[in-house]
Amino acid sequence: MTALTRSQILEEQLARIASREPQVRAWSWHDAQQVREQFAALPADTSALPLAGVTVGIKDIFDTYDMPTTYGSAAFANHRPQHDAYAVAKLRAAGALIIGKTVTTEFAHQHAGPTTNPHCIDRTPGGSSSGSAAAVADDMVTMALGSQTGGSTIRPATYCGIVGFKPTHGKVSLEGVGPLSVTMDTIGLMARSMTDIRLLSSVLLEQDARAQAPAKPRVAWYPSPEAPQADPDALRALERARDVLQAAGVQIVDIDLPAKDFLALGQSNRLIMAYDAARSYEVVYRTQAANLGASTVKLIETGLLITDEQFKKELLHVEKCKALFARAMLDVDAVLTLGAPGQAPLKSTGTGMSTFNRAWTTLGVPCLTLPFAKGDAGMPLGVQFVSALNEDSLLLTLGTKFESIFAAHPSV
Amino acid sequence: MTALTRSQILEEQLARIASREPQVRAWSWHDAQQVREQFAALPADTSALPLAGVTVGIKDIFDTYDMPTTYGSAAFANHRPQHDAYAVAKLRAAGALIIGKTVTTEFAHQHAGPTTNPHCIDRTPGGSSSGSAAAVADDMVTMALGSQTGGSTIRPATYCGIVGFKPTHGKVSLEGVGPLSVTMDTIGLMARSMTDIRLLSSVLLEQDARAQAPAKPRVAWYPSPEAPQADPDALRALERARDVLQAAGVQIVDIDLPAKDFLALGQSNRLIMAYDAARSYEVVYRTQAANLGASTVKLIETGLLITDEQFKKELLHVEKCKALFARAMLDVDAVLTLGAPGQAPLKSTGTGMSTFNRAWTTLGVPCLTLPFAKGDAGMPLGVQFVSALNEDSLLLTLGTKFESIFAAHPSV
Repeated sequence: MTALTRSQILEEQLARIASREPQVRAWSWHDAQQVREQFAALPADTSALPLAGVTVGIKDIFDTYDMPTTYGSAAFANHRPQHDAYAVAKLRAAGALIIGKTVTTEFAHQHAGPTTNPHCIDRTPGGSSSGSAAAVADDMVTMALGSQTGGSTIRPATYCGIVGFKPTHGKVSLEGVGPLSVTMDTIGLMARSMTDIRLLSSVLLEQDARAQAPAKPRVAWYPSPEAPQADPDALRALERARDVLQAAGVQIVDIDLPAKDFLALGQSNRLIMAYDAARSYEVVYRTQAANLGASTVKLIETGLLITDEQFKKELLHVEKCKALFARAMLDVDAVLTLGAPGQAPLKSTGTGMSTFNRAWTTLGVPCLTLPFAKGDAGMPLGVQFVSALNEDSLLLTLGTKFESIFAAHPSV
Repeated sequence: MTALTRSQILEEQLARIASREPQVRAWSWHDAQQVREQFAALPADTSALPLAGVTVGIKDIFDTYDMPTTYGSAAFANHRPQHDAYAVAKLRAAGALIIGKTVTTEFAHQHAGPTTNPHCIDRTPGGSSSGSAAAVADDMVTMALGSQTGGSTIRPATYCGIVGFKPTHGKVSLEGVGPLSVTMDTIGLMARSMTDIRLLSSVLLEQDARAQAPAKPRVAWYPSPEAPQADPDALRALERARDVLQAAGVQIVDIDLPAKDFLALGQSNRLIMAYDAARSYEVVYRTQAANLGASTVKLIETGLLITDEQFKKELLHVEKCKALFARAMLDVDAVLTLGAPGQAPLKSTGTGMSTFNRAWTTLGVPCLTLPFAKGDAGMPLGVQFVSALNEDSLLLTLGTKFESIFAAHPSV
């Protein structure tokens, strides 16, 4: 990619932002002139920079030294960190252009910002990484950073019809990122293709993603015990994805996960999140409650009532399920399941449900959503793949393989 | 402990700070009046607060909403975060009084602040958690938080004759803590007794520390391949500690760790630290180099030259050694080794060497130093115990047992 081409892409994307932002409202901070200055400051020889000139949107819970960071909260409206979060610093060191800060729900929880779904502005892009998903889906940027504590990367990526990747918990440092749950917060990666997701992963995960996918991957069919809560079109798409994969030589296998234990992970996720968030934001709550959204206040008040004993009990349940999942995955490369209950709901109803994400996030395992089919209202549907802990490289290679299988087998 | 007694302890400690701080210089920020306001704000019924009224010093790399946070750097002299680091928030929620911010070397690396060793003001308290170790040793506070990336908790605790505990890497969130190496940074705990270390651990580690120590613990004798770099009095004390433990019924066993691989961990620690620090502070270096200490500039310049390939190669070596250590520890409860090369050196020479800490920190395993004996110059010496990954509870119970064995067998 030549510098000229990168410059053209940048100008096209800046023009896209200028024309579409009034409808999409993906950005909490963006300054085209400042982005052009970043581009002009790139070295003449960018051959050693894997992301030279590549445009990235940064969820506004990541600290940035040259842009405000509000955590999506009026309580942090004037917060201007001196220092980049580690992930942002890594992107800059790799030559990326930081296009701006994308809208996040407050503290990456539920209290929503103004962002709309680029496929239909009446609908939510999902959350909490609302602006990152919308900006990528609308081609305002090539890549974006989000985060996930419940379903905050996989769900909005699914709703917006893009690729979303949540690595194994702890693989990428969250230094300099506003917390929701220090126990479960995980970085999220978004792009429109597996190629870009793998490029971004190679910079952030410090891992070798060159491993070949298995010739006949073993994919476990797992609509999950929550399947009755999904929409019929989403379940039909999931079945079609299974059949397309099987026709392409993928082995579809069963997986035995105790339904009661795994259903209870949803409750573990809620309880751990509330406990942690309350500890992180108790002072803000006591001094600035009027500046917080109602759902944030409720989260903190719920969390303050959770005792250390309850919290430890949930951690023990999570440990038990981690062991069960690790054992169940010994002969499985990835689980095939839903990434969201269906199409993006109307924005007036919130940012959608994390029903199909909470268990995986709580287990810390890597998750990938690929766009697949359209739903009854013409909105994107996706399918989610989940691998065992630390099998990020395997999941990324599988994702590339499955993306090309899906491309060769139009789903509608 | 009644509120009255807590109040008396607080006033005694505040008086101690007022009288001794001009010599010890443990604090980068302290305001006795603000501390008294914290005390007055405690609820009438503190029975549910495990640290009600307990005084804690906080290393000045932890963000605090009500006190400045400088990371020990002139580049962050005006940094005033809006938000508590998670560990600080947990302490406040448990009723602790935050007495102030303790002096840290710049970014918890080597560029030293003014703190002296309370046992002899010509000598260093060690670093990077200089002020935390000195404040605890001088009875200015009951407990303190530090951090460790090389030897920044165990070494200063050893030099100051107190108990220092570095939990397993990742056990306590570093959310809101200024980074040195996001790969290796770990919180550190300091106090004058195992009782207080376990109380602090019970709040921060969320784990059950009630496990009984084994009746006949198996302790591996491991002066380490670096033993030739230790002072003779420190090695004699280590041998005495071994003999005292053995006489008390502890089984002294051998451990087989390949010397070449484990020596190389020191280099891994240096390289990973420089690589990570350079990524975190590149922007600060480019814009404010004149505000940085010479050793900090050198660290960043070294790190900027380390390639991703070199970094990944070191991570692979660390993974190999983690597996070797896990296997070697299957029949061992703790390793007995040095926590520092000897007594605290003169302050003019720096903050001492992390020779006996780097390997353990890099492996992420829990480390505990207990004071034991005096050296030839009358300064404290200590001994270090190291357990397998995640065996924090075992190490804490062993520490309690060994502390009482040492108390019953005066070492000099």
